[in-house]
Amino acid sequence: MIYKNVFTSQIRRGIKLKQTLKNYSVIASVLEKANIGEVTEVKGWVKNLRKQKDLTFIDVNDGSTSQKLQIVIPKNLNTNDLTYGSSVLITGKLSKSPKGQLELVAEHVNVMGTCVVSDGYPFNPRTAHPPEYIRQFLHLRSRTNYFSAILRVRNSLTRHIHNYFESKNYLHVHTPILTSNDCEGAGEVFKIQPDNEITVKAMMQEGRDKDSVYFGTKTFLTVSGQLHQEAICRGMGNVYTLGPTFRAENSRSRLHLSEFYMLEAEIAFCDTLQNLQNVIEDMLKYLFIKTHESNANDLHIIDKEKSVLPLWVNKEFVTMTYNEAKGILGKRGLDMTDEGINKEQELALVEYCNGIPVFVIKWPKEQKSFYMKECQDDNTKVDALDLLAPITGEVVGGSLRENSYDKLKAKLPSDRLNWYLELRKFGNIPTGGFGLGLERFLQVICGVSNIKDTLPFPRWPHNCDM
Amino acid sequence: MIYKNVFTSQIRRGIKLKQTLKNYSVIASVLEKANIGEVTEVKGWVKNLRKQKDLTFIDVNDGSTSQKLQIVIPKNLNTNDLTYGSSVLITGKLSKSPKGQLELVAEHVNVMGTCVVSDGYPFNPRTAHPPEYIRQFLHLRSRTNYFSAILRVRNSLTRHIHNYFESKNYLHVHTPILTSNDCEGAGEVFKIQPDNEITVKAMMQEGRDKDSVYFGTKTFLTVSGQLHQEAICRGMGNVYTLGPTFRAENSRSRLHLSEFYMLEAEIAFCDTLQNLQNVIEDMLKYLFIKTHESNANDLHIIDKEKSVLPLWVNKEFVTMTYNEAKGILGKRGLDMTDEGINKEQELALVEYCNGIPVFVIKWPKEQKSFYMKECQDDNTKVDALDLLAPITGEVVGGSLRENSYDKLKAKLPSDRLNWYLELRKFGNIPTGGFGLGLERFLQVICGVSNIKDTLPFPRWPHNCDM
Repeated sequence: MIYKNVFTSQIRRGIKLKQTLKNYSVIASVLEKANIGEVTEVKGWVKNLRKQKDLTFIDVNDGSTSQKLQIVIPKNLNTNDLTYGSSVLITGKLSKSPKGQLELVAEHVNVMGTCVVSDGYPFNPRTAHPPEYIRQFLHLRSRTNYFSAILRVRNSLTRHIHNYFESKNYLHVHTPILTSNDCEGAGEVFKIQPDNEITVKAMMQEGRDKDSVYFGTKTFLTVSGQLHQEAICRGMGNVYTLGPTFRAENSRSRLHLSEFYMLEAEIAFCDTLQNLQNVIEDMLKYLFIKTHESNANDLHIIDKEKSVLPLWVNKEFVTMTYNEAKGILGKRGLDMTDEGINKEQELALVEYCNGIPVFVIKWPKEQKSFYMKECQDDNTKVDALDLLAPITGEVVGGSLRENSYDKLKAKLPSDRLNWYLELRKFGNIPTGGFGLGLERFLQVICGVSNIKDTLPFPRWPHNCDM
Repeated sequence: MIYKNVFTSQIRRGIKLKQTLKNYSVIASVLEKANIGEVTEVKGWVKNLRKQKDLTFIDVNDGSTSQKLQIVIPKNLNTNDLTYGSSVLITGKLSKSPKGQLELVAEHVNVMGTCVVSDGYPFNPRTAHPPEYIRQFLHLRSRTNYFSAILRVRNSLTRHIHNYFESKNYLHVHTPILTSNDCEGAGEVFKIQPDNEITVKAMMQEGRDKDSVYFGTKTFLTVSGQLHQEAICRGMGNVYTLGPTFRAENSRSRLHLSEFYMLEAEIAFCDTLQNLQNVIEDMLKYLFIKTHESNANDLHIIDKEKSVLPLWVNKEFVTMTYNEAKGILGKRGLDMTDEGINKEQELALVEYCNGIPVFVIKWPKEQKSFYMKECQDDNTKVDALDLLAPITGEVVGGSLRENSYDKLKAKLPSDRLNWYLELRKFGNIPTGGFGLGLERFLQVICGVSNIKDTLPFPRWPHNCDM
């Protein structure tokens, strides 16, 4: 039918890319260009509707921006199926309203998909539904102003992250999701198996259990790509990754997810904690400023108060040692245990610093992971840092990595990590790195109190229905 | 120690980002700027070493480029620990060699990490180790010219993907990895459980098994983010995702991985297959051209022959129906079964089309997924497409989505997908979309015959050691 004989009909077209721009205009660009008089076709969803005697007014949004385009529909056009929530294709001429606002005077109105609210549609026009209510309808919630604004911020933030690291010559790597080692030794990991019993049977070998039948070893979902990043960093320099990580914790707090995104970077030739702190502080300020530039309207919709750039982007972050933090908290009657700093204490430290993010450095060795570097002046401490911020407390964790082959060998938790040890044997370099929880950072940027509202399909205990 | 009292020492610095450029120069930029006479510090690894009577020459690479910087070391400097594979910090003055090549005349040489090749280092200088050999040393292979070139291409390709979709106004979304539905109904999925028996015990409820104890339902690793993307697309328009997907197949071919990256896009208001084909063809040509522009040297290192831009970027892709493909293959003695088109047949079709990628469209309904749209002129067929390319055969699969609530309801494989059906109930729009396997596409771009060489840490049956 539409098979073309390539041997007869080939025409060299020069390296010119085919025009695939949509034959309609996205509303973000219609509003930006504001070409009064232009005949324009837009597609989107009806967000508001007001019927007057001679005219119908609708506000249409297509997701490309938080703003809506006002459409004026003359009486002679059929508006029977036109309701809040319906999808429409509208052609008309751009003009200015009496108040000077851009609007489209419709010539054709086509309702593509109707929306009968009384048939179970959970949202209503001109209503600010609370986030907890919206969250019950994960499959429909991108249709709300609140949640679509958050998804646009998330989209921009990830783009700013890539731009930042590209400009600094970092290589983006995809570290694996499936792994046979548990980086943090935390214990709260998911394990995987093939679901198909026939596959399991076919692959079963003597002495193996179901957990190790597929890969020949028990296999988990990653909690961090750091160890893998270190391998690439020791061959190609600075690297970063932005991908999903997992925790099988039985926690339902406003700060925990079972699946979340982590930005991790590993910095080659990094030999002081100050160097690492500079990278983190610079990056966070860049991301805050850029996101406020690119998504001011969205941030305003999410939380009017938080849509102002915080004062700390102009200030130096605070640095204090773990021992200093302990002293400050002790004076406030918040005594630390050997478990470290809890959430209440984290937020108290940020408050103590006037809401400015604070690096807590030089942590007791036994509270931190095996791969962290011993402090030169105190072998009971490691060169680790937590960065504490308003709203969430800890947003970044990082450290210098133990660089000495012998010291690392003595601390290595398992022979399975011999490959990691061997990285120090040949052409070794000092490195340091950090991890930032993307969703927690979005909470800080947007002022969203529940982490479940920072990503499209949150997973937490008893919640994975889609 | 370095705690600053923020209440007294705050200085407003204006929104000026801290300088965190490294105090050394990446070699890509040294070679590009070629500032003869400049005193420069570089850090990297020794790739070649030639000792002459009065001078030592080393080639240093830091991963930022495939090229190496030649360093000339005068006799008076200590070069004892300097070997192939060692990491070095070198300061010196940029100058021109007698042959006009940029070189650094060393003033200080510091060997940071030694490399005793005889101590088990698997690579040798000036040796093109075969990919199968390199693949045995996953943790060290980014130190080879071959594999580091592939990682740089992968890095650029993902960046070009983001740039392409940003320029076309697509929203980047993170679809979930954990899901309670199996999109393709393929059966070959991984299931997950918490590893910690204490967690399992604490969360156990009557009537539940271990597979559903954590989420309250059996939970899998995703095989596609499409259904979730459709939900966002019906609230916010065009969307795309680039993330890991999983198959628990017992396959060890050169084209299969247990964990691989998939680019998936969903196009709002897409109502013809031709529209979808235009997007795919335009995008693939863009990505090919851009990658050849950004990584010409890397592509040359990977495979001299494949480093030439293929002729088909100038040509229209071929389109043929499934039935036409069947006829062509039948004439060549490659009869198709009801299972569809196998790998040999895919490659034969590409050969028939003179190596130009070919869309096979209008597939028998029973070979494809429930969500694909029935052809208007033939209810035994669906508006699906496979795009076949040289080297790998299928690289893209896509379709229009069944848009009719009633038709979709009749085909819905499970009540668990009622949320997906409900997307058609309120303000529905026509959509179409596709998935592209990132690793297979890298095989086509780079001319890499084994998919395991297109990503840092490949996972396949019996192989997940790191």
